[in-house]
Amino acid sequence: TIYRVVCIPGDGIGVDITEAAVQVLNTLSKALGGFEFEFTTVDWSSKAYLERGWYMPPDGLEQLKKFDAIYFGAVGWPDVPDHISLWGLILPIRKALNQYVNVRPTRILPGTTSPLANCAQADLDWVIVRENSEGEYSGQGGISHEHSPHAIGTEVSIFTQVGIERIMRFAFETARSRPRKKLTMVTKSNAQRHGMVLWDKVFYEVAKEYGDVEIDKMLVDAMTVRMVLNPKSLDTIVATNLHADILSDLAAALSGSIGIAPSSNLDPTRKNPSMFEPIHGSAPDIAGKGIANPVGAFWSAAEMVRWLGEEKAADGLMKVVESVTAAGVKTKDLGGSENTKGVTEAVCREIEKQ
Amino acid sequence: TIYRVVCIPGDGIGVDITEAAVQVLNTLSKALGGFEFEFTTVDWSSKAYLERGWYMPPDGLEQLKKFDAIYFGAVGWPDVPDHISLWGLILPIRKALNQYVNVRPTRILPGTTSPLANCAQADLDWVIVRENSEGEYSGQGGISHEHSPHAIGTEVSIFTQVGIERIMRFAFETARSRPRKKLTMVTKSNAQRHGMVLWDKVFYEVAKEYGDVEIDKMLVDAMTVRMVLNPKSLDTIVATNLHADILSDLAAALSGSIGIAPSSNLDPTRKNPSMFEPIHGSAPDIAGKGIANPVGAFWSAAEMVRWLGEEKAADGLMKVVESVTAAGVKTKDLGGSENTKGVTEAVCREIEKQ
Ligand SMILES: CC(C)[C@H](C(=O)O)[C@@H](O)C(=O)O
Ligand SMILES: CC(C)[C@H](C(=O)O)[C@@H](O)C(=O)O
Repeated sequence: TIYRVVCIPGDGIGVDITEAAVQVLNTLSKALGGFEFEFTTVDWSSKAYLERGWYMPPDGLEQLKKFDAIYFGAVGWPDVPDHISLWGLILPIRKALNQYVNVRPTRILPGTTSPLANCAQADLDWVIVRENSEGEYSGQGGISHEHSPHAIGTEVSIFTQVGIERIMRFAFETARSRPRKKLTMVTKSNAQRHGMVLWDKVFYEVAKEYGDVEIDKMLVDAMTVRMVLNPKSLDTIVATNLHADILSDLAAALSGSIGIAPSSNLDPTRKNPSMFEPIHGSAPDIAGKGIANPVGAFWSAAEMVRWLGEEKAADGLMKVVESVTAAGVKTKDLGGSENTKGVTEAVCREIEKQ
Repeated sequence: TIYRVVCIPGDGIGVDITEAAVQVLNTLSKALGGFEFEFTTVDWSSKAYLERGWYMPPDGLEQLKKFDAIYFGAVGWPDVPDHISLWGLILPIRKALNQYVNVRPTRILPGTTSPLANCAQADLDWVIVRENSEGEYSGQGGISHEHSPHAIGTEVSIFTQVGIERIMRFAFETARSRPRKKLTMVTKSNAQRHGMVLWDKVFYEVAKEYGDVEIDKMLVDAMTVRMVLNPKSLDTIVATNLHADILSDLAAALSGSIGIAPSSNLDPTRKNPSMFEPIHGSAPDIAGKGIANPVGAFWSAAEMVRWLGEEKAADGLMKVVESVTAAGVKTKDLGGSENTKGVTEAVCREIEKQ
């Protein structure tokens, strides 16, 4: 089988880690046989934007639809206002390609430690299911009376029955597929009394279809406390676009580094390609130095391989990555002394060995 | 001087810790002389709501205006939907009494430890300045097509020039008053491109008036990572109503327990009474057991005393509280074995001694 993957390295360390991921994926397919990747790379970046005035060409979204999957590096660069870069690239892709689920697993990898004093490796093993198509990221709102002393800006969060139902269903299926069968729903419906209350209501409605899944409900503020003080009590988590954005960064930090965390932007209907990206950003401070942690990129690549149907290859890749971190081959953010290339080559060697 | 304070114990452990705070404040004024408290307690609680259908009487807000300060316990109870209890009590008070600032200091108290492995006492000393009057808590929005498959709910965040300017100014003044003169502004203006962009813009405008304050800007998701992995790099923090709600709970957890954290809802114009409350909730699971940690309540009481103008008494009270935690007289959440009464009596004894 040939999988056609389009790479959008984007900005900063997005470029370094996409290159690393491609190298590892090619090594993997060569070692295993049976499938191959055909990579196409597009230069949709802030640098290109500054030169020509756009991130994606007018038919950009249509172009993407022709591929089996999208591999995304990072977007965001100091010279471009963040809301221009993100609404020029990553957010329209998530929305237009119906990638309404963002899955963000977090674990403490072998050979790494949590910054929490009392958190053993087995104590933190979460999957955050993020609503990826609406909520606080709907893009609605505006500014009136701009440049006046009575300027007013709004942000409108949209929550729909359909949008909530489908993410809840995905979250319950995820919880059901895991040994503990436990789902924690996050909300802020005490302070936000309209759309967030609908969110809660639909959660309890859908819960009726999943009697085998244990459920509980947390307010987003209290959830951060629980993640820090009682990580073991959590398993699968479902939250809105913004809440899950915040909680998944916190989760990554608690597992050791934002550099290891993967994310999958999924269209569960499979009518459109899904997109895989590490959750870290473009990291302008370390861009171009070759020291970015590629583990989040490899984990994202493994999730892509899994989504494409190569379950065994995905598991194999994750095992290799974990054996490499276990052996202490790590970048500085994880307390090691390797650079991007060092970790990448160690992973490739290990794939070839097995 | 006589200070007239109205107490709203509210729900659950709010009742226990308000009682403890009143006892400590009376002991303090007796020991020091020169000022006295006249306490009035109102039963505005979920229990009362369930009996009579309202939290505050129709002239409730007018009643509050006659006092010098408000001491608040906690609100929220399983039998009442949270958005009913909060919009029936705490949120209208914050709004109607122009308490547009919520100040939330966080430190690791002597004798307590952070759950973070590499965080010494001196490494975490923050003040979070929370916008308390608008943003995500504006209450605007609604539900259309309710009970239909195409139901849609919205939450509208409102950010105004006036609202942003005044909170920024307060935050800069706070930063300036602290040794490090450092202010970190939190935003999510990459994904939220209207009101949040106004928030950023006003921050940079106001910054021009405070050339002596060092500034930086963080996205709210990345901020959680920084709080966990680099607490030392932060000092004063300014954030929106929701972002600061989340970050201040995280801050409390990282400092050891949500049970120690205070908050001051301030009307800096002093035209209305300000309100002081620990940031923890009503904790139904431990309510009525007499084991709630009263430290957050004492710290909140100290901030009230400071706001009333008794600076020295406030400092004195905090020193006593810290000497008691240092001596290991602590509740279970801090790793101790005392109950609410034990800690309260230890604090009172120590006040009388000094
Ligand atoms: C870059 C940004 C739009 C994005 C988000 O907020 O979704 C990022 O933080 C993420 O978590 O993928
Ligand atoms: C009770 C609730 C409305 C409140 C808030 O969200 O502001 C609480 O979490 C707090 O932090 O004071």
